[in-house]
Amino acid sequence: MRGFSSKIGALRESPTRKIDELREKLKRENRDVILLSTGQPSVPPPREVREAMKNLLGVDSMELYGYTPSLGTYEAREAISEDLKRLGGVDVPPEQIVLTAGGQAAMFSTLATLLEAGDEVVVTDPTYFGYRPLIEYFGASVKYLRTRLEDGFQPRPEELRSLVGRRTKALVLVSPDNPTGRTLKPEAAKAIVDLARDYDFWIIVDEAYKTLIYEGGHVYLYKLAPERTISINTFSKDPAIPGWRLGYVYGPPEVMPKIKLMNEEMVYCPPSFAQKMVTLYLRSEARMRYVREVVEIYRQRRDVAVSALRKYLPEARFVVPSGSMFVFVDLSSYVLDGESFAKQLLERYGVAVVPGSYFSEVYKAAVRISFVSETPERIEEGIRRMGEAAGAL
Amino acid sequence: MRGFSSKIGALRESPTRKIDELREKLKRENRDVILLSTGQPSVPPPREVREAMKNLLGVDSMELYGYTPSLGTYEAREAISEDLKRLGGVDVPPEQIVLTAGGQAAMFSTLATLLEAGDEVVVTDPTYFGYRPLIEYFGASVKYLRTRLEDGFQPRPEELRSLVGRRTKALVLVSPDNPTGRTLKPEAAKAIVDLARDYDFWIIVDEAYKTLIYEGGHVYLYKLAPERTISINTFSKDPAIPGWRLGYVYGPPEVMPKIKLMNEEMVYCPPSFAQKMVTLYLRSEARMRYVREVVEIYRQRRDVAVSALRKYLPEARFVVPSGSMFVFVDLSSYVLDGESFAKQLLERYGVAVVPGSYFSEVYKAAVRISFVSETPERIEEGIRRMGEAAGAL
Repeated sequence: MRGFSSKIGALRESPTRKIDELREKLKRENRDVILLSTGQPSVPPPREVREAMKNLLGVDSMELYGYTPSLGTYEAREAISEDLKRLGGVDVPPEQIVLTAGGQAAMFSTLATLLEAGDEVVVTDPTYFGYRPLIEYFGASVKYLRTRLEDGFQPRPEELRSLVGRRTKALVLVSPDNPTGRTLKPEAAKAIVDLARDYDFWIIVDEAYKTLIYEGGHVYLYKLAPERTISINTFSKDPAIPGWRLGYVYGPPEVMPKIKLMNEEMVYCPPSFAQKMVTLYLRSEARMRYVREVVEIYRQRRDVAVSALRKYLPEARFVVPSGSMFVFVDLSSYVLDGESFAKQLLERYGVAVVPGSYFSEVYKAAVRISFVSETPERIEEGIRRMGEAAGAL
Repeated sequence: MRGFSSKIGALRESPTRKIDELREKLKRENRDVILLSTGQPSVPPPREVREAMKNLLGVDSMELYGYTPSLGTYEAREAISEDLKRLGGVDVPPEQIVLTAGGQAAMFSTLATLLEAGDEVVVTDPTYFGYRPLIEYFGASVKYLRTRLEDGFQPRPEELRSLVGRRTKALVLVSPDNPTGRTLKPEAAKAIVDLARDYDFWIIVDEAYKTLIYEGGHVYLYKLAPERTISINTFSKDPAIPGWRLGYVYGPPEVMPKIKLMNEEMVYCPPSFAQKMVTLYLRSEARMRYVREVVEIYRQRRDVAVSALRKYLPEARFVVPSGSMFVFVDLSSYVLDGESFAKQLLERYGVAVVPGSYFSEVYKAAVRISFVSETPERIEEGIRRMGEAAGAL
């Protein structure tokens, strides 16, 4: 009998994809939209790396086109291993690294490997909207660990303790955070690790923004708890190849062959062209220079966004992001509902932002603003229009 | 409590990956191995298309690097729609096409969308070894439809009828076939469609080799039963970019949004660089010329393989393949067990083939020979050594 799996009911369309559709519609109507909604970077990969790829495309062999091992080429995994050492003094051998078709496949395959019906998974609130549907798809249930603007969105250890128990399979968090831009403080990281050991659960940390740090540093949880930390990574943000779909997972040795196998079933092998480019990039002289340049560009834009928020929305509450691509702005002094505000802002004022309700059960009057995709002038103008829209409501 | 999902027990490593490992080991020992095991094509994509991609890599914008819609760009889907019309007169609008991260992701997402615990899925025996683990991972059980060398591996309708019933959710088949090279006869296709209508099940057809046809033609099942046929496709074989991971699914309008959503959760979007290349390729003058040239190269190699089999293994039984990349050779006059034969052939004679037991519960004394990856001289030499090895046993 034809029909569908009842399990796919847990899946829903990515909310930013809905915004993309509305944006496309406005574009077709020739309306200019200021994009403060997307986490898509704006600086293409270093020119010298792209030149090297051009040369490879000229070679008449199957070398560049063929399958790679399911876990990625040894060279790519070795380059990543060296990079982790250089970036954060993290010791991960190539054997514990599995390349994936992007960060999404990294998270999907990790959750598929770990979760089953009846498990509980703790996620922060606010957090990236992509995780809850996946956790529920794999039959587990979500428990929310509230983080608060007044705490700089650092999790409170005693609240985490009150949430965990016998059925807790994992804690999933993003660090640096999407949507809040929070980088984890060392004492919060230590508290998480201590609890994970006491209750014996996995720590799954999405480190997509680990090189986009504006103040302070990034805490690599794997260094604190290598026996239970699984790190999710992507090359979508650095070196800015989101469409090429390449990411990686690293973690304890007993987990990685299972995650590899899941990826083999899902996509057979990670995209080879992107693997080649990333290997060249990570081993090039451009690697650290590119990150420094990009961080300076984004920092300047972040500062423009922060000043504009203070100027045009003086009652807005937010934490100045120390990492990532986003400011999470609580507009409860102006609006009741971030979702209808975002809709009107886009339709009447031509500015796209993402409503807080996509990330939080609590911050429903908030919006997430990206400061990486537009020029400083357009960021300022977008936030000026936000002020206008908030005043009009 | 840390631990793993019990469901991943259904997954097993691809058997050809095990052969790859042994092959790599022999390579490190500097032993030359004749590769008759792999379905990897040997003619890189047309030069003019690669030149166009080189130019795009020089452009300083995010255009080539950014995310695409989850179901692929409109241009790519439009180019595929035109291609299906040109190749087989198949009418599929771009809206019913979803691009995926390769044929594997196409099949994974399709089975995830359709199957649940208790379902039964009919697959042919022999068939591609990748399907059973996936079907079982999604909780369904497999029923085997025997196909026989003496029938040219055409399925017998009365045997299919005896297998289907109330719990039959789908028939999964490969056409042109891997491992047998069989192209489906129109009367067999008609019988399958009639039964699928009588018992109301899905037809899932893997058409990876649809343009590699040496005699006769390819039957597009979608044309016969558009309301229930889901077609799985890949660009791994034509235009030979297996490592780049791009494939697509088309099927009835009510199925495609669900398959799209599943792919969004698995990989977010299909690889953009490959999408761009395939769009250029399918719309280039090179498109049909490239297929004709590749088919001629492969046909010549197939003929070499067939002659060599008749010369060096006169008691071997096989059907001359009318499509695909493979000959499936029954060696029961020579050996009892194809698996131990293949192992000895690789270790002692330096020739890699895939044992029949990976594809069949019946043809365990068979091996699958690929005729696309090696030169005609090396194909002949590989089969000569097979004869030597079979004689020595």
